[in-house]
Amino acid sequence: MIEVRALASLGQTALDSLLDRPSPLLPKVQRAVAHVLHEVKSHGDTALLAFTQQFDGVRLSPDGLRIPNAQFRHAFDAVDPALRAALAQAKEHLERFHERQRPDDYELTVSPGVQLGQRVVAFERVGLYVPQNLVSSLLMAAVPARLAGVGQLVVCTPPQAAGGVPPAIQAAASLLEVDELYALGGAQAIAALAYGTQTIAKVDKIVGPGNAYVTAAKAQVRDLVGIDLLAGPSEVLLVVDRVADVSEDTLSTWVLAELRAQLEHGPGTSALLLARQPALARAVADALDPSELHQRNVALLSYERLEQAIDFANQYAPEHLCLWGERAEAQLPRVHNAGSVFLGPWSPVALGDYTSGTNHILPTARQGRFGSGLGVRDFVKTISYQRISPQGVQHLAPTVEVLAQVEGMARHADAVQARLEPR
Amino acid sequence: MIEVRALASLGQTALDSLLDRPSPLLPKVQRAVAHVLHEVKSHGDTALLAFTQQFDGVRLSPDGLRIPNAQFRHAFDAVDPALRAALAQAKEHLERFHERQRPDDYELTVSPGVQLGQRVVAFERVGLYVPQNLVSSLLMAAVPARLAGVGQLVVCTPPQAAGGVPPAIQAAASLLEVDELYALGGAQAIAALAYGTQTIAKVDKIVGPGNAYVTAAKAQVRDLVGIDLLAGPSEVLLVVDRVADVSEDTLSTWVLAELRAQLEHGPGTSALLLARQPALARAVADALDPSELHQRNVALLSYERLEQAIDFANQYAPEHLCLWGERAEAQLPRVHNAGSVFLGPWSPVALGDYTSGTNHILPTARQGRFGSGLGVRDFVKTISYQRISPQGVQHLAPTVEVLAQVEGMARHADAVQARLEPR
Repeated sequence: MIEVRALASLGQTALDSLLDRPSPLLPKVQRAVAHVLHEVKSHGDTALLAFTQQFDGVRLSPDGLRIPNAQFRHAFDAVDPALRAALAQAKEHLERFHERQRPDDYELTVSPGVQLGQRVVAFERVGLYVPQNLVSSLLMAAVPARLAGVGQLVVCTPPQAAGGVPPAIQAAASLLEVDELYALGGAQAIAALAYGTQTIAKVDKIVGPGNAYVTAAKAQVRDLVGIDLLAGPSEVLLVVDRVADVSEDTLSTWVLAELRAQLEHGPGTSALLLARQPALARAVADALDPSELHQRNVALLSYERLEQAIDFANQYAPEHLCLWGERAEAQLPRVHNAGSVFLGPWSPVALGDYTSGTNHILPTARQGRFGSGLGVRDFVKTISYQRISPQGVQHLAPTVEVLAQVEGMARHADAVQARLEPR
Repeated sequence: MIEVRALASLGQTALDSLLDRPSPLLPKVQRAVAHVLHEVKSHGDTALLAFTQQFDGVRLSPDGLRIPNAQFRHAFDAVDPALRAALAQAKEHLERFHERQRPDDYELTVSPGVQLGQRVVAFERVGLYVPQNLVSSLLMAAVPARLAGVGQLVVCTPPQAAGGVPPAIQAAASLLEVDELYALGGAQAIAALAYGTQTIAKVDKIVGPGNAYVTAAKAQVRDLVGIDLLAGPSEVLLVVDRVADVSEDTLSTWVLAELRAQLEHGPGTSALLLARQPALARAVADALDPSELHQRNVALLSYERLEQAIDFANQYAPEHLCLWGERAEAQLPRVHNAGSVFLGPWSPVALGDYTSGTNHILPTARQGRFGSGLGVRDFVKTISYQRISPQGVQHLAPTVEVLAQVEGMARHADAVQARLEPR
């Protein structure tokens, strides 16, 4: 049975071991992926078809890579009404949350004749990687991309056994007006998006989560194209303080349900509980079967001082942070390292995974210290500009003169000086 | 003498050769840097001092790494008034341009009982790399970091021959209220910031340009800490259309001054001219001495159709794009790949390099397709959150039920279902 430990009793070694998560980049995987990238770069579609047969066990014809737009364009109308309603709700909520994220164009005059501005420009062509069947990941990436105004949205997702992609993915692609849809997965999909092949034109940025091969491939092409954060195994950290209006039994049932939903994400997943009441942690420990913990990182801890639990959470930088109980929820302003925070026992993570409106593509493996969940900002760049008048040059020239001299950049000063000379 | 070519006459091979720039990551440099990183990770300060002696030829004592705050805190007051005025002007303009970039916190209710929000949180500890003497790069990185609200701002810059750092750097560090200042350069500085040593605590993100070694080091630690874009050699692309009110002689003088300022950046630098009038390009070709072109990428082209010149610029994605002449300047809305745009012949790039207020840390090597100049956004992350009520769970549950089934995530549906059951 899993042990319940007191947070305050842990030494630095035990803490470090909890905080430590493996890099999403595994050396062995990286070598295999380098080969795939090289082959796709050299042989294009031929390599894509060969790897699809090798890794997915699916034999595609050359024209099986792309799902014709005519085929999926009306797929939304063809699926079950319950699925239509689900996709529509998720899309609407995601749109409402993300539409506030677009940076603004602006222009200002900082001194007479010195006019500056910033233009926000969406990427021209973006590739979205969607793991097999993960229709929600398609929603999470496509909604902010569309709001940003991306020109061409290209989706790659692994083929079904009989070729093609699942109806639900097609339905989402149709609802989100995806421009191109490909039955292509793994590192070979990332290679195609980065280098281009006969069938797939290369993109400016690749986003979306994937397995260790997809992540390694993204890491290896990231100087050629933009990428989002490297996706590691999923993580949840629950801080459960005293919770009013929910019985102890119900609370332990809900905690257990939360941890089990997390463990469903597969090997490497992390799920940590920090409970104010040791009895709660023990009840959870009793209920968890050892088989559920196989290849998962699970820790059950109790805390006495809430501040210590929050400090630990900030060090851990979890992908998902649950704060349950009035006092814990009030700590939100003190949270500075986390992907997304779920406040109160009525906010299970699954709601954010699917439909509340926040993004579920979030930083893992402590990347929350310096990275953010996916948003509109990931699909735009900013271009600054300036328009200086003769008067403006006069005003700025002395500063250039002084700083260029400090830096030994005489030609820079000359270029400005040239404007001041009689013509 | 350098040849003047017509843009329209270039075949794809010639165009590709112009567009192509080497990766900022050189394999040979990467191997040397891996060694430096490993040594600093293993031996801390001892390795820093050894590499400083080996690479910079400077022998520092262990307490020579850090410039005491008491030493530089009042350095601004001690320098020449002209330098003080220059630093103050640059800081003020930079602040006015960048203060509009901070993303907003927001909160909204997307449906009854479903409350969502985004918090913008500055990084706790950021390292700024400042190449030798480049006081302007310190300004460019520190101003947006300060506006973002970064907790601790740490600067590393190569030591002077006699130890310590130049007075101008100390003055800027004092004006910008830098928290820690180190006489440490090269890959060893990046290693110290990423891993931490006895003297230097590790940071969450490292920004700022550097040479090939610094850039390679940033690339190698970027899964451990955040970094900004990889800095390649500097680039300028000038599109010079018909320019009113400036004589042909003056125009060619100014073009020449602009190109020469660019070439001053050192080996690998690129400077391209696209001129509406072939005579202008020829006058520039006549004036350039072959010695000025050594290890520089210079191309002089003429164009007939302005659209073609802008298309080329968008493909090239230059760090600096100059548009001179009324018709060319009117193309700004069509520019979608460039670091910063300089409108009109009165806007030499040197003004933006030093003091107009836009940032000079900009994407090179075609990274402008997917990246932006440094800004406040590079020093903050966003954390989303949600607070759901029992009514909200009711409203969202059917969508989770449907999508979790599509994805084979039964435990996710269970976690939501648990909230709907009688307690």
